[in-house]
Amino acid sequence: MPVGTIGSVKTMSPKELIEDTQAQIILGNTYHLYMRPGHELIQKFGGLHKFIGWERPILTDSGGFQVMSLAGLRKITKDGVKFQSHLDGSYHMFTPEKAIEIQNAIGADIIMSFDECPPYPATKDYVAKSLKTTLEWAKRGQDFHKFTDKQALFGIVQGGVHKDLREESAKALIEMDFPGYSIGGLAVGEDKKDMFEVTEFLDPLLPQDKPRYLMGVGTPSDILINIANGIDMFDCVMPTRNARKGTIFTRNGKLIIKAGRYKEDPRPIDDECTCYACQNFSRAYIRHLFNSGEILGLRLATIHSLHFYLELVGMARKAIIAGKYQEFMTEMVPKLDTLMD
Amino acid sequence: MPVGTIGSVKTMSPKELIEDTQAQIILGNTYHLYMRPGHELIQKFGGLHKFIGWERPILTDSGGFQVMSLAGLRKITKDGVKFQSHLDGSYHMFTPEKAIEIQNAIGADIIMSFDECPPYPATKDYVAKSLKTTLEWAKRGQDFHKFTDKQALFGIVQGGVHKDLREESAKALIEMDFPGYSIGGLAVGEDKKDMFEVTEFLDPLLPQDKPRYLMGVGTPSDILINIANGIDMFDCVMPTRNARKGTIFTRNGKLIIKAGRYKEDPRPIDDECTCYACQNFSRAYIRHLFNSGEILGLRLATIHSLHFYLELVGMARKAIIAGKYQEFMTEMVPKLDTLMD
Repeated sequence: MPVGTIGSVKTMSPKELIEDTQAQIILGNTYHLYMRPGHELIQKFGGLHKFIGWERPILTDSGGFQVMSLAGLRKITKDGVKFQSHLDGSYHMFTPEKAIEIQNAIGADIIMSFDECPPYPATKDYVAKSLKTTLEWAKRGQDFHKFTDKQALFGIVQGGVHKDLREESAKALIEMDFPGYSIGGLAVGEDKKDMFEVTEFLDPLLPQDKPRYLMGVGTPSDILINIANGIDMFDCVMPTRNARKGTIFTRNGKLIIKAGRYKEDPRPIDDECTCYACQNFSRAYIRHLFNSGEILGLRLATIHSLHFYLELVGMARKAIIAGKYQEFMTEMVPKLDTLMD
Repeated sequence: MPVGTIGSVKTMSPKELIEDTQAQIILGNTYHLYMRPGHELIQKFGGLHKFIGWERPILTDSGGFQVMSLAGLRKITKDGVKFQSHLDGSYHMFTPEKAIEIQNAIGADIIMSFDECPPYPATKDYVAKSLKTTLEWAKRGQDFHKFTDKQALFGIVQGGVHKDLREESAKALIEMDFPGYSIGGLAVGEDKKDMFEVTEFLDPLLPQDKPRYLMGVGTPSDILINIANGIDMFDCVMPTRNARKGTIFTRNGKLIIKAGRYKEDPRPIDDECTCYACQNFSRAYIRHLFNSGEILGLRLATIHSLHFYLELVGMARKAIIAGKYQEFMTEMVPKLDTLMD
């Protein structure tokens, strides 16, 4: 899922997202949309789809991760989280019910339970207590959610890098019978090995017939490895944010477009790629746009990176259907993390 | 002509320029392209059209205006202009021959003679001397230009706000028989009344069967009034630059998109407009994008403004053909300069 934080997948138009990247669903951030333009305004416009001109599915997070990590002053209690706006320092409070109320107003197709995402590192004792709170909040949110026919509310598995806590979390949420399960609290600073161990551990525990969404992950190779561990859905700012900084993902590794060696390079970013950027523009031109501060450079890098991410998961899907996922992953993963010449 | 200063019409892709604004020709700035990426590199790529992926016509200015106005230290001699790069302070010199050599390498369809654009205000004596130099440079550039079958070299009429000097300039250039005539040195600070008087004065002097290009003009009403004075071609950064600052031109006046009164406004920028921005997005959403620093806001404002400018000149063309230009102008001009509610 491309990330459309504040109601726009950065640099892209909805038309391009569909035509140039084949995005099927995008993500919006509840915290950011609550701050700007506000969920009441979005509701007045008939929901986020109408407000931003996007007819395909949308998923919103619960705001939990953002209020923990972004906001300055914050205080976690049994009832919820008090925090200050990163924009004007004003005080706000999210409770499990409030997070659902906001997401009901925003109107995404898939919404999230309000959770506490513990920092990393944290003591096991802290993670266990935090998990207990998150499970209570999941129940309160589920009880509050009225539009179960229109908006699928996912529960979020927490528990840090501790398998016993992850198991406790998964079992309790499965008991509550959510239509889908998110895995939160990963990609927050732990070793990748620990992340992969958690998803591998959770694979047999989570229902086979319900989607599993790994929140905030990740690099192309992270995605392929976690697909092998049973994950169905991902969101990450990496393809868009890194593209805007000039690091472009390709099937052959990362390309640093501002590098001097591309100054006169007539090749596209990836000569096998069918995206608008690769079909029409050279590395030399895109490098020139970046070095001249031209927005079109950010756009072309973003188009390619999103197109590549979505093509990669499309290839993964085909490989799974063909029963060749292991070979596919073995071939692709080593290349993806390299730096291109 | 939308302005593509450094090889990109800011925020736009070539595809959008064609599909969403119907641009027939764009402008590139010789000074900027010489600095970045350099005319030799552009030539290696087969010219600017191929380098930037734009198959329709391109016009380049001569660099004269930019080296006079943008560059820091500059010294004008009979032979040309010495100046310092605005990027790194390095020293360069443009001569009439060099300006043509660079434009030959860039390969635009229409290119400009190297001229001195005198500052405003300037003494009449200064303007007269400057004009003499510009006429000598026009001749030198014409003698140097080798690709007359591929690139139409226009002469530039100078002379400030002085009709006798403008007449002297026009007659000398007509004598040299250029395929088109530019009018430079206007929109540099003089009263609009003076600008219109100059174009009106030049109208009967310039050949009827050759295009006249008024450089760097202007607002929508400037364009309509100058069309009445016989101008065929215009370029200006206003639709793109002002759009990025949040001032959007419409047939009903200027719309300041960040204004609080549009916070909940469900209407498009212009409800009669057929552009991508107006067909798909509300003022409230575009305002939200601007206030959140989202690039899509700049893009939508730019698409609308360019679409409007090009639609406006299309309407002017139709009105001329129908023999109703005066009525058209009388109806449109008063609205164009107002501020929308």
